[in-house]
Amino acid sequence: MKDTLIRSLYRETESYLGKDVKISGWVRTIRDSKSFGFIEINDGSFFKNVQVVIDDTLENFKEVTKFPISSSIEVVGVVVETPGTKQPFEIKATSVNIVGNSDSDYPLQKKRHTVEYLRSIAHLRPRSNLFSAVFRVRSLAAYAIHKFFNEKNFVYVHTPIITGSDCEGAGEMFRLTTLDILNTPKTEDGKIDFSEDFFGKEANLTVSGQLNGEAYALAFRNIYTFGPTFRAENSNTARHAAEFWMIEPEISFADLSDNMELAEEMIKYIINYCLENAPEEMEFFNSFVDKGLFERLENVVSSDFAKITYTEAIDILLKSGEKFEYPVEWGIDLQTEHERYITEKVFKKPVFVSDYPKDIKAFYMRINEDNKTVAAMDLLVPGVGEIIGGSQREERLDVLEARIEELGLNKEDYWWYLDLRKYGETKHSGFGLGFERIIMYMTGVSNIRDVIPFPRTTGQAEF
Amino acid sequence: MKDTLIRSLYRETESYLGKDVKISGWVRTIRDSKSFGFIEINDGSFFKNVQVVIDDTLENFKEVTKFPISSSIEVVGVVVETPGTKQPFEIKATSVNIVGNSDSDYPLQKKRHTVEYLRSIAHLRPRSNLFSAVFRVRSLAAYAIHKFFNEKNFVYVHTPIITGSDCEGAGEMFRLTTLDILNTPKTEDGKIDFSEDFFGKEANLTVSGQLNGEAYALAFRNIYTFGPTFRAENSNTARHAAEFWMIEPEISFADLSDNMELAEEMIKYIINYCLENAPEEMEFFNSFVDKGLFERLENVVSSDFAKITYTEAIDILLKSGEKFEYPVEWGIDLQTEHERYITEKVFKKPVFVSDYPKDIKAFYMRINEDNKTVAAMDLLVPGVGEIIGGSQREERLDVLEARIEELGLNKEDYWWYLDLRKYGETKHSGFGLGFERIIMYMTGVSNIRDVIPFPRTTGQAEF
Repeated sequence: MKDTLIRSLYRETESYLGKDVKISGWVRTIRDSKSFGFIEINDGSFFKNVQVVIDDTLENFKEVTKFPISSSIEVVGVVVETPGTKQPFEIKATSVNIVGNSDSDYPLQKKRHTVEYLRSIAHLRPRSNLFSAVFRVRSLAAYAIHKFFNEKNFVYVHTPIITGSDCEGAGEMFRLTTLDILNTPKTEDGKIDFSEDFFGKEANLTVSGQLNGEAYALAFRNIYTFGPTFRAENSNTARHAAEFWMIEPEISFADLSDNMELAEEMIKYIINYCLENAPEEMEFFNSFVDKGLFERLENVVSSDFAKITYTEAIDILLKSGEKFEYPVEWGIDLQTEHERYITEKVFKKPVFVSDYPKDIKAFYMRINEDNKTVAAMDLLVPGVGEIIGGSQREERLDVLEARIEELGLNKEDYWWYLDLRKYGETKHSGFGLGFERIIMYMTGVSNIRDVIPFPRTTGQAEF
Repeated sequence: MKDTLIRSLYRETESYLGKDVKISGWVRTIRDSKSFGFIEINDGSFFKNVQVVIDDTLENFKEVTKFPISSSIEVVGVVVETPGTKQPFEIKATSVNIVGNSDSDYPLQKKRHTVEYLRSIAHLRPRSNLFSAVFRVRSLAAYAIHKFFNEKNFVYVHTPIITGSDCEGAGEMFRLTTLDILNTPKTEDGKIDFSEDFFGKEANLTVSGQLNGEAYALAFRNIYTFGPTFRAENSNTARHAAEFWMIEPEISFADLSDNMELAEEMIKYIINYCLENAPEEMEFFNSFVDKGLFERLENVVSSDFAKITYTEAIDILLKSGEKFEYPVEWGIDLQTEHERYITEKVFKKPVFVSDYPKDIKAFYMRINEDNKTVAAMDLLVPGVGEIIGGSQREERLDVLEARIEELGLNKEDYWWYLDLRKYGETKHSGFGLGFERIIMYMTGVSNIRDVIPFPRTTGQAEF
């Protein structure tokens, strides 16, 4: 007899009623009295458990009531309706057998655990309700992203993880080597001779696939990346990890306004997809993690996102009468407190802020006619602040070269990136979405360590 | 007027006939005589170009005929049927304007280039027919994989890229560090003090997500990974790269036979998906890269894969009368020549070979009752040899511990992996598919460097 998945029992209950099924799964709880009892079983296919009714007509009834939490078992029984109770059906067992034992020191007993403790058992935490919900939603959100871009005929590009240089200047990088560190080959002037290293030069882990993505956007018109990126920043916050996943679409023949349109459509698509395809998990988050979640997400998917310029945002903040920790003046980088004020207090919905001062933005962003601002955009959302950052890219060769020189970057490092402006340049745009940011936003989970299966942060690379 | 994509013109030609459209794209070729001419334009949305007819009723006709190859242009015109010609329609231009110039030294002029040369311009090569086809198929194959597993309710898991130790012992690894290599902190006994490194210990790039994947399979039942993996092996072959992508499904309550069933279904699904969704690209490969491609793929999707044991395979090879470079005896690791003989000469279709000698396989594979072989399986396909490797995993704690000790591995390194056997173990299985292998197989492209957008190999990390 083949296993029936608990997901199928819940999703197609009608077709199983009165029928014999076999299920395999792990014991979540057992309650029993003298002659009957209940086992809650989860098989990983569905957020909810199935209730199995056992009684002393089972040969091994006594033994079954002593099966430990988390042992894996096989149950054969008939599916019966249970009108008026919490679950719509249960399984009346005709046979229950243990497959794999579980030691009595199983760490996930019924009592509540702190998320900090659960992080220390990252190999077992997906068996808990919270993490089961988080990581199924993470999986569905990833699928939603691929589906969204596939429907639009975007080409998915695997940009390199290992890079020859820090082209973006976006932050501290992890260096990679196969040299014997205690005995590195040296050049004549006493530096490390990286020509003897694996790649014949210094190599690091990527901080963004954007520059490579642009090369592909100028071939396929519309592309996206979705892969891991890295920051070796020694910051111990709830929002930063050394390893995280990023989505970076890049679109040709498209300006900043097309870019915003795409970002808005994508965010709404992901949220709607998860609400539709993980109703039980989302309900759990709304009930136990963040009581305002549904209201917040509903507001996002049904709003037209607001659009203001950075200069307008500064005006609003200056006129707000609010006391901010970081003083406001034209030219500053907006802090989370500023961003949240704008999106939560002023607009009460997601807001695109565009046209930031060029001095606080990256070299590749397109310079506006005022020569002071660039065609950049950030998407701010209530409850979080910035969730997306993007820009129209500088496609004018002379302007880009001047900007690279102005910033003291090495033009030779960018030879191929500049080539993209020499051979059929066109306006193009793109943005980056931190995948964990959107998962945190959709689940209400507030620490990035709790939305990555095995998080890597300062001092932490266990598992 | 909004752009119409060339893909839409080809896929929904009927609905555009007689209508005015605007397209944006890059000039592939221009041919002209005195009073009229043709421009072939590609906009990246589709493998094929669209033909634009220009004539001297255009104000800037003379100028247009001089637009350089690869310049980006905008065309407005009417879509007209062209019965009896190669393309089903063309665009009769009413206006043609240049958007972005292209220098006359554009490297992808019409003449044929070697793939070696094209690798040196990896930022431009996706604009060529070959690489345009390869990388769209790569994108579609990735989507097919996500779709396949999503339809089966598998949870997609992002296993970590940075790992604290070489748990799998699967090969040489890249070490990661943020230490100043010329001035590393030392311990008292003169070793590098990795406690001062970013993660407080040695860290490397992952060679496989399997062990982490198992933890999630024992929570969600069925999971898969799809992410980059790394090998610091100094091998300069057409089949090996330092950075490549891997798909690793892991299924619970499933034995080796379930594992084979899943692998066979997945391979057929990916191939069918690409044949259906990239007919123009696949036709191109079949015509210009590998004339036997369609026949080979058709054979794969319509065959029931054969199944033999390693011992049977050795028998077949011994009795074959073939002269092999590597001599055959029970206990050897099968070489590509052996694998290809079996799949191409004997079975003429894909073959699963199972139950390999334990001494040539990894510690986590389940030991068979003969205590000599393990429940491993490799999938061999005509034209390539091994394309998938997998196994049933050892779920018995005592057997696994004994195996770890036998191999001289450090049990403490595997504390959490062993935990998975302490708390509700069950039979489970999984396999790994090298993503580039299946792309090479489906396209006929013979060098892995030509199916990765920006390949990383020994001495090569440009772009």
